[in-house]
Parts: sequence; structure tokens; C-alpha cells
Amino acid sequence: MIKLKLKVRNLGISTGGPLVAALHKDDASVFDINPMDRIKIFFGRKVETVVADIASGSAEVKKGMIGLFQEVSDILGMKNGQNVSIMLARKPISLDYIKKKLDGSSLSKQEIDQVVWDIVHNKLSDTELAFFVAATYCNPNTVEETVWLTKAISEEGERLRVNSKIVLDKHSIGGIPGNRTTMVVVPIMAASGYTLPKTSSRAITSAAGTADTMEVIAKVDIPIPEMEKVIRKTGACIVWGGAINLAPADDKIINVEKTLRIDAESQLLASILAKKRSVSSSHVLIDIPIGKNAKVSTARKARSLKEKFEKIGKALGMKIGVMITDGSQPIGNGIGPALEARDVLKVLRHDPDRPLDLEKKCIAMSAALFSIVGVKDGARKATEILYSGKAYSKMKEIIALQGGNPEVTPESIRIAKLEYSFPAKKSGKIVEINNGDIAKLARIAGAPQNKSAGIYLYKHVGDHVRKGENIFTIYSDTDSKIEYAKQILKSMDGVISIR
Amino acid sequence: MIKLKLKVRNLGISTGGPLVAALHKDDASVFDINPMDRIKIFFGRKVETVVADIASGSAEVKKGMIGLFQEVSDILGMKNGQNVSIMLARKPISLDYIKKKLDGSSLSKQEIDQVVWDIVHNKLSDTELAFFVAATYCNPNTVEETVWLTKAISEEGERLRVNSKIVLDKHSIGGIPGNRTTMVVVPIMAASGYTLPKTSSRAITSAAGTADTMEVIAKVDIPIPEMEKVIRKTGACIVWGGAINLAPADDKIINVEKTLRIDAESQLLASILAKKRSVSSSHVLIDIPIGKNAKVSTARKARSLKEKFEKIGKALGMKIGVMITDGSQPIGNGIGPALEARDVLKVLRHDPDRPLDLEKKCIAMSAALFSIVGVKDGARKATEILYSGKAYSKMKEIIALQGGNPEVTPESIRIAKLEYSFPAKKSGKIVEINNGDIAKLARIAGAPQNKSAGIYLYKHVGDHVRKGENIFTIYSDTDSKIEYAKQILKSMDGVISIR
Repeated sequence: MIKLKLKVRNLGISTGGPLVAALHKDDASVFDINPMDRIKIFFGRKVETVVADIASGSAEVKKGMIGLFQEVSDILGMKNGQNVSIMLARKPISLDYIKKKLDGSSLSKQEIDQVVWDIVHNKLSDTELAFFVAATYCNPNTVEETVWLTKAISEEGERLRVNSKIVLDKHSIGGIPGNRTTMVVVPIMAASGYTLPKTSSRAITSAAGTADTMEVIAKVDIPIPEMEKVIRKTGACIVWGGAINLAPADDKIINVEKTLRIDAESQLLASILAKKRSVSSSHVLIDIPIGKNAKVSTARKARSLKEKFEKIGKALGMKIGVMITDGSQPIGNGIGPALEARDVLKVLRHDPDRPLDLEKKCIAMSAALFSIVGVKDGARKATEILYSGKAYSKMKEIIALQGGNPEVTPESIRIAKLEYSFPAKKSGKIVEINNGDIAKLARIAGAPQNKSAGIYLYKHVGDHVRKGENIFTIYSDTDSKIEYAKQILKSMDGVISIR
Repeated sequence: MIKLKLKVRNLGISTGGPLVAALHKDDASVFDINPMDRIKIFFGRKVETVVADIASGSAEVKKGMIGLFQEVSDILGMKNGQNVSIMLARKPISLDYIKKKLDGSSLSKQEIDQVVWDIVHNKLSDTELAFFVAATYCNPNTVEETVWLTKAISEEGERLRVNSKIVLDKHSIGGIPGNRTTMVVVPIMAASGYTLPKTSSRAITSAAGTADTMEVIAKVDIPIPEMEKVIRKTGACIVWGGAINLAPADDKIINVEKTLRIDAESQLLASILAKKRSVSSSHVLIDIPIGKNAKVSTARKARSLKEKFEKIGKALGMKIGVMITDGSQPIGNGIGPALEARDVLKVLRHDPDRPLDLEKKCIAMSAALFSIVGVKDGARKATEILYSGKAYSKMKEIIALQGGNPEVTPESIRIAKLEYSFPAKKSGKIVEINNGDIAKLARIAGAPQNKSAGIYLYKHVGDHVRKGENIFTIYSDTDSKIEYAKQILKSMDGVISIR
């Protein structure tokens, strides 16, 4: 095969994933290379196939040069001016499969495996990945396809092996501020003798993910061997899933979905279950909160999702239980990592000012987990373990093994120094709290990057307020942020509805 | 509003269209800016809204900097180190409409106008545009939506005003090598007294577009005022549509469609008709070739497309006639700009060795155009104008006014110096010539970039060959290209089928 010799220029710009190299248009024309075509780059014994980008009017990539985006520079490790040779390569076969899916046909196991492999190995551009996401959105995956997709996603990632036949797990579908049940349910179930290798996510559009909140009191960025050690000693862990590359294909898919805030149901199913499969979970509880601003907005949708979870779980050899819960308002009082960590500790410590709605939900979820493994009277058992302090002791073990201070108290957790309280505009009963607005305000105040920032809610739906009484306080460490939050708050009509 | 101050760094890398600026992740977190969010950049009195890209691990965009991709640098015209301020901006409202379309709803006129405006003004990233293309692919536009899309695309571009009530035009759906009817039909009809402001495209995946072929004998990169002058003097022109920005939204849509080689029917309709509308066409002939390797592969699809063209034309106030033609094999003998220009001149000059299949098709198309404007006996009229040399005289006028040499002869057009002839492997009748393979070989030989490169076909389907007799010759100016073409040819099983 005839190859073209070019001089490397490392552009120092990251694409965010896809492997891309830019050619000058004159060089591209030699081999009839068009944008989005693939080229093989040869450097010594290294070969890498990347997406071609044709530089037009760019001062950086002249004729005779090849401009490497950061991801390609990282793999090839070349200096500016070194020589490579390139040739036109085939486009990934998975593009044919993406087109097939877009045309409404179902994909085979082999085809799904190939698409996932190409995603993981950065062989697809973001545009191509967007076509895949759109294809599964318009032509939803069958149960069979979702099972294959789930398997492919988990098999293309790291795997945690757990020395236990029964491995419990839980997942709450997102969208509800303050829904930090994991940090209570995991210690309750671990104190009952079960194994729970829990991986959680960081916030994407919310004010705090479980990983962000746990990070207030312990390390969550933990490699797999260390995670296994914590589980061996305590039966559980609560770590950040993003650190251990359990489902890299899913991470990339989610990244593209965010563009249009779409969430293809079949992707959601595969996304959640692949991560459970990667940590060897056998019994899984799924919490589907329903609410106007939650991810799932109607009972009908929740029931349909429940059915699919159960079917797919069965095909994957997992026992799945689904709880449909109230997602109409935030849970607990704190919104933001530090404020939510305080709530969780209060529940574990059985403090008098603990948020009872959070406690109630955690007990119900633990009861559901008991029920999934066939244990009766779970609500009573969970309450006993929580109220007796056994769950708290278990959490202290986990905190200590994950490098935190087990003696941490709610009061010792720092909250941001600037505050602004939002008073009721009239007296009456609170009829609605807008989850989206609350999350947005907490984010503007600095959460989750600034763990101390966020919102503290004094009231929930159904509570009565007097005109002028504070409904919530915004906490921030930065003048400009609290000012910005106040401005945005002014433009929010329905953040709190009183009648 | 609070703004963030940053120092400019011009990255010198082109995105190929979308306006993108890269921020350091620490700066992005200040305003909770995520990838694909929009930021407003303020520089003096200039304000521009661009897509945010979050630089991760990039040496080029440090904290406190903003990295401008070429398109943004061009608009703002700033030097490295100059200060700008930025703030978070709303995402384009058209993203909501794209999601709506993806969800299966139809869009209103206003919504389509907004999407097209955002496309033209580079407000959408390629990923977002891919979602729009996928949405109209999965949920085809209604006739009404296509009419609105056509209008929006043509109204967001330049417009040619022609001083004539009857303005003729023609379009051949692509995929057939050598199908250079425009350069014969336009002079026939112009010599009959009609007005034809013909804009053509360059090759995308073929060996030559009409614009590439016309460029062998005249200038095609002509601004609108000059185009209007040529039309005033001769009644017609044959220019490159890409030079005059008639339908910039369409150019960007096609660019994304190429990624997956998809061609949403409703996009195709809007794409073709928007360009006709922009040049004020009133009577339009559409040629739909059917063939295994053509864009339209079955008679059923061709008929459905014909119906839609007629309906949409009516709604746009255009009279549209559709011809369904044979697209099973290349038309004429030459494939590649120079070789096709030779064919065209031979037909116009009535040379004895002219390709009769091309002549026949051009006469049939001219007859169809006569029929659309209500003139009877068109085939006889077209033959008379062509055979009498009137069409050739008209073409010489056009060539001269478009800066070419009107005395150009087929022999004076240079053909590439290296050649390789492909002999028949056995004696028999040619039953198939693969359009795709022929185009690919011509491209590998250097067409259309090298206008002299290409293929000359000695035989067509139905012709008999003896073993060893040459079926076609590949022409190239570069040793390596002709070698590569020979290699590829070896791997092509079905380029010519003999039985």
C-alpha cells in the first residue's frame, strides 16, 4: 500500500474523546480523504486509526503536516516535527449498523458488540455517536437488544469480583434534590450482613450526586483493589463509579445525550444495569420517583419502566425489585454535598433534628431490599438496625476504611459562609416546590464544585408558613455567586407555590 | 449580570463551521458552564454567542484563558492576550424544536425558520445538527414541513433575480457517472429562447459534478452580478452553486448527512427545490435515474419521490415535471471532468464519435422541458436545434462570457498521461457495469481534483466483448495513483460483469 509521509504537529487541543487528526486539504486530496474518513497513522511499530479532519484556513496545519488532537498525541507520544506515514483506512463497520438501526431494523448481538467496542475505543466521532443515540431514541431497543447492550457495555469495562453469592445494589432514577438514600440504606443492609459494592455518580445537572456527598466525609476516588479491600472488611463501600471505568461506553453515550437532554429509555436501562452487572450484583432495587420535574413524570411511564427493568433483569440473571416513589419535591432538608452529608449523618445518628422524610424513605427502601432477598418483616428489621446505631457503626467503619474521619459530626461539616434567606411572600400552605429551580439555585451558589454551597429547606409541601417566614436559605462562599442566585431567584415564579 | 474576564488565545484550528470557544474547567465551573452550553463573548462593542468546549488536559487553554477556534477568531478579530468577558447564555431555542421533531411531532413554520436560522448562523454544533438530521430521517417531514423548510433554506441564502416570467431549470438526482446532461440541455433550451440560470454542484462522492466538468472549459466560480450579466446576454449560464451561497443551511446539512451517507428524502426535496427557488425557477425538470447503485434503487421509490416533487412544487408555485430514467450504468464514455467535457463537446458538435446514449438522454430531457412549458413536438425541436449547431453556438457564447475559450475542441482538452487498460477476462456480453466501482476508480486516479484524470469506457451494457479486449482505460498523472487504482481494481469482483 502506498503511504503519505507527514510531519507531526501536536495541537494540544482535546476533542473530549474521539481520536481525530487534521490534514491539510491538499494532502487529503492525494488519497481522496474526506472529513470523517478514517486514516491509519504509522509511527515506528505503532499504528492507530483516527478520524480525519480537513483543516481549512488553519494556520496550524500546513501542507505536509498532520495535526494531532490531544487524545491522539497521548497515544502516539510523538514530538512536533517527527515523521509519520498515513493511509486511508476503512470506516468502522459499526457505522453501517448505526445506519441500520436508524432505518428501524433491530441489531444482532454481534452488531451491538461492535458498536460498543468502537465507542469505547474512541473510533466514532461525536456526530456519529449522536446518530446512534438518535437511532435508539427513535427506534427503541427491544428487550433482547437492551440485554445485549447491557452485556456489551459491562463487558467493555472493568469488573469487580465479589466473594459472595448474594450481592445487593440499589439505584434511584435521578432528578430529585436531596435524595441521598444510598448513604443510609447501604450501612443498614451491610450491618444486616449483606454485601453491597456500591458505586455512585457525581452530579451532572443536579446539585449533588451521592459520590459528591460521600466525598465530604470520605475518599470516593478509589481504585478497584482498594474497593475490594473495603468490601472484604465491611461488606460494603460507597465510591465514585467514574473513577473505576466500569462502563466507559455508557459514559460517552451519556455525554452525547446531554446535548439535547434526551434520555432514551433503552439507554437508561442498559446504562443502569450494566454498572450493576460490572460489580456482580445479584439483587437490585430500583427506585423510580415520579414528579412533575423528575425524570419520570407519570405513573404510566413508571409502570412501563418497572416492567422493562424486571424483564431485562431476569434475562441478565438478576433479581430486580422496583419501587415507585414520590418525586414531587426535594427529600431531606439539605441540597448540596455538605448540607446533604449533614442530613445523612443526622439520620444515621438518630439526631432529634434529622429529616424524617429521608429516614422514612431509607427504611422503606431497606425493607424492599429485604423483600427481594426473601426476608420478611424488613421494615421492622431496618428500623431496628438504624435506631440501634448498628447502621451508624457500619458507616463509621466504611468512612474509616475509605480514608475519612469516622468521628465526623453534622456540626463539624463546614457550610459556606455567605447566606441569603428566601421569605414567604404570603401566609398559607406550601403546595409545590420546584425540584428544577431548587437544584439550579444550589448550583448557581456553587454546588457541587464547592461542596459547602447549597440550599437548606425549612419547609416541605403541606407545611404552613407565615408571610415573611424563611422557607429556605442559600449558602455560598462567593459574593458574586450569591448575588447571581438572588437575581435568578427573582425571575423564578414557581420555585415555591403557596396557597 | 456578572461576567468573567478571560485572556484570548487564538487556537488557529477550524471547526469547519460551528462557533466554538474552549474554557479551562476551573473557569467553566465558576458559572456552571458545561460542554455544549452557550457563552456570550463580549469584546468592545462586539458580542458573539458561541458553543462552550471544556478543555481537559489541554496545554493550550490554561486557567484564565479562552481558546477561540478559527471561526470565532475570524468574527471577533482579536489578538492573543487581549481581554474579553464572558457570561453564560441561553441555549438556542431550536434545540427544543429538534427534540420535538425527534419525539415525532411536526414543526411549525416559525420553528423551522428558527432551526434554519440557527444552522446558517453557526449556532448549532455538529452533534446538534446530527440530531436534527436524524430526527427528520426517523420522522419524515410532512409536505407542509418540506415546503416551509424549502422556503426557509432559500430565504436564508442569496437570491438571483431574473427578468423573465418563465425560468427553466433541471436537476438530475445523483449517483450516475458521466450523467452530464446539463451542458447539452441548457444550450438547447437557451437556443430555443428560454432563460436558464443553471447552478450546479461539484462532486462529493462522484468523479465529477457538472461544475467540475464545466470548469474544464470555462470559469464556474462566478459572483451573482456577473452571473446575471451572462444570463442577460445569452439567456443562460452554467455555474458552480457553491460559490454563490444560495442555500448555506443546506450545505451544512449535507455535510452532516455525509457522515453516515444518509439522505433523508424530505431533506433531499428541500435541498433541491430551495436552490431552484433561489434562482427564481418557474418550470423545473427533475431526472430520477433508477439503478442498483443509483441514489434511487427501485421504481416504487422513484414514483413516490415523483409525487412528492410535484406536490411540493405546486405549493411553492413551481411547475415540476419528473422523468424516471435508466440509472443502471454510466452515461457517455468519459468519467472525470476532462473526459466528460470531451463527451459533451462531441455531442454539441455532432462529432461522429459522440456518445449516442448521452445525446439521446439530452434530447429526451429537452423534450420534457418543452412539454412542461406547454410546447408540443419537443423532441423534434430539440433534435433540430442540436443537429443544426444552434445549441453549440449558444454554448460557445456561454463559454466566452464565462471566461473560457469558445473555440475549445474535444482534442484540445488534456487527458492525464499515464494509462492502464482493463481487458475482458472472457468473451461474452456485458450485463452489468457497477456505477460505484467506476466512480471509485476514477477518484483514485485523481478525479475530480485532477481534472485530466478519470476513466474512458469503450463498452456499455449489452455490448459484446472478446477475451482480452479493453473495456475501459484509467487515466492518471501520478504513478502512485495508477498503481493504487490497479490494486483496488484487482479486489473489485463486479466492476464489469460479462455473461
